[in-house]
Amino acid sequence: MKPKEKARKMAGRPEADGTHPQLLPIGVIRSSIKQRSEAPKQGSEGAPDAWLEVNPLVAQGFDGLAVGDHLIVVTWLHRARRDVLKVHPRRDRSRPLTGVFATRSPDRPNPLGLHPVTVSEVGKNRLRIGPIEAIDGTPVVDIKPVLGGGQST
Amino acid sequence: MKPKEKARKMAGRPEADGTHPQLLPIGVIRSSIKQRSEAPKQGSEGAPDAWLEVNPLVAQGFDGLAVGDHLIVVTWLHRARRDVLKVHPRRDRSRPLTGVFATRSPDRPNPLGLHPVTVSEVGKNRLRIGPIEAIDGTPVVDIKPVLGGGQST
Repeated sequence: MKPKEKARKMAGRPEADGTHPQLLPIGVIRSSIKQRSEAPKQGSEGAPDAWLEVNPLVAQGFDGLAVGDHLIVVTWLHRARRDVLKVHPRRDRSRPLTGVFATRSPDRPNPLGLHPVTVSEVGKNRLRIGPIEAIDGTPVVDIKPVLGGGQST
Repeated sequence: MKPKEKARKMAGRPEADGTHPQLLPIGVIRSSIKQRSEAPKQGSEGAPDAWLEVNPLVAQGFDGLAVGDHLIVVTWLHRARRDVLKVHPRRDRSRPLTGVFATRSPDRPNPLGLHPVTVSEVGKNRLRIGPIEAIDGTPVVDIKPVLGGGQST
């Protein structure tokens, strides 16, 4: 089967009623951070670089990425809680409970992480990226180049 | 494995093995843009404001959002193709085929859209946001405040 067909087949799974789309991981983070408790709250707060291991089914989609590229890596924060709608920002109990969509808490109905990173190495089926606070084993679901517009993440 | 679990797994259904997480829409875009062909390629390219209708199941999560907030709205681009791994950037055939992860094409294995927007009105169970190029009916899967770091989307 051609890679394109494989990707289509996997992507084409379930989605029975079209209202609960299912994600296909395109890669996984390999990091020295092994526990959520070790992870900084943001990449800019002292996070390390990590490898992004590419899912061979979608490896073609990585063609054109190069050292020095600024990317937004979108992860699925698999250790987060999906049943939380209010949090104390930055786990600071002195701050009032706030709706999760007004915070960057990983706990939220769809725990997607947005990570602005720079590519420092391009290997066979992997990219060195950082800084990134995602823990080892975190699935990657999308990657996009940063646009020049100057809007912040 | 219990029979019920096994049946679900065989059916390829949601998150049976944790590797294909399923998204829960937290809202939907109500826009004057009805067709993909009418949509600008980026919000900054002349897109209108739109309503984000909140899913009542997760309405609490919106508490704390206010007029003037700068947000990243994450959508599921439901009309995109998931079986595409290479595209001509901006559909310009004079540009070489490029891996989708090096482009902002909506066509990609997980067609997530990232939209930097400003909140212009907060209504009962809806937010006025823009500019946003997503078409009417596009599911919204996450919202995050923009961080001050100055990295671009």
